[in-house]
Amino acid sequence: MTDLMTLIQTRRSIRKFQDRPVPEQMLHKVLEAVKWAPSWANTQCWEVIVVRDPAAKEKLQASLPPKGNPAHSAMVQAPVVLVLCAKTKSSGFYKEMPATKFGEWMMYDLGIAGQNICLMAHSLGLATVVVGLFDHDKAAEAMQIPAGYELVTMIPLGYPAKSSSAPKRREIAEFVHYDRW
Amino acid sequence: MTDLMTLIQTRRSIRKFQDRPVPEQMLHKVLEAVKWAPSWANTQCWEVIVVRDPAAKEKLQASLPPKGNPAHSAMVQAPVVLVLCAKTKSSGFYKEMPATKFGEWMMYDLGIAGQNICLMAHSLGLATVVVGLFDHDKAAEAMQIPAGYELVTMIPLGYPAKSSSAPKRREIAEFVHYDRW
Repeated sequence: MTDLMTLIQTRRSIRKFQDRPVPEQMLHKVLEAVKWAPSWANTQCWEVIVVRDPAAKEKLQASLPPKGNPAHSAMVQAPVVLVLCAKTKSSGFYKEMPATKFGEWMMYDLGIAGQNICLMAHSLGLATVVVGLFDHDKAAEAMQIPAGYELVTMIPLGYPAKSSSAPKRREIAEFVHYDRW
Repeated sequence: MTDLMTLIQTRRSIRKFQDRPVPEQMLHKVLEAVKWAPSWANTQCWEVIVVRDPAAKEKLQASLPPKGNPAHSAMVQAPVVLVLCAKTKSSGFYKEMPATKFGEWMMYDLGIAGQNICLMAHSLGLATVVVGLFDHDKAAEAMQIPAGYELVTMIPLGYPAKSSSAPKRREIAEFVHYDRW
């Protein structure tokens, strides 16, 4: 078993996948990790589409720019693409009114749920990459997302075919302040 | 050592803290977990203010509504409050222009970093609660946040004084779809 710090430090965004299915029990664990994510007032605004159908993955891939998104081939190569959607006007809202200056908090809550997915996958020996740069309306149309929901990110999931080195991080001293900015 | 699934399932939002400081090496690990969070094109938009000064914590507490936020007393009771801020127009942007229909992705990235904080704290026996409902401009003024940054969430951190039961979650079958909505 790997400790959490090692999991967090060794998780990489992987864009090359083996031609090998994701075992059902592993997929279940990844979805269980979403279930237990915290959320704004426990609103649990997430919805997840598990995409395995090759034709559906191609439709999703078509929503990415042909150049400029390095995850383009991963969208069809990965055996599974998890599509993260959110109910709108739920997280961050109180009686249908925004409760803060930021309005929607669905992005914050999907960030939490998404990280649970990536960490759980990594702990099982699976790899992920969070895809955010694409035509969201085009992808939503392909997935038949109903009104009142948004398709936000897509996460290819599978066994990694290639490791990658960690992109450079800012040191703690570069982003931490004490008692005030 | 606790496995990741157990950590994810047993993490609770805790609002009662012991009067006991957070050891420096634990705080360092929590900040290290932020450092290794993934982010939009590795933009790492996060900034963290470690607040331990009682007067500063009181100022932050004053930005919460006196009623309606159950974390009100936690803001001064916790030995540490981690204030999560973000650089704006960074995550989700390309050449200073929004790259997607959602504009800012700082909320998504802070959700990821925030979950790393909560999981790492829990793995060390510390407790957290994510506070999002408060007057963000008032808190930002108290922390002297410069232009071009937003103060987004505040996370009281310390040894838990009280456990709590898990709020009810939607079952996997209630939020998962296959191949399309």
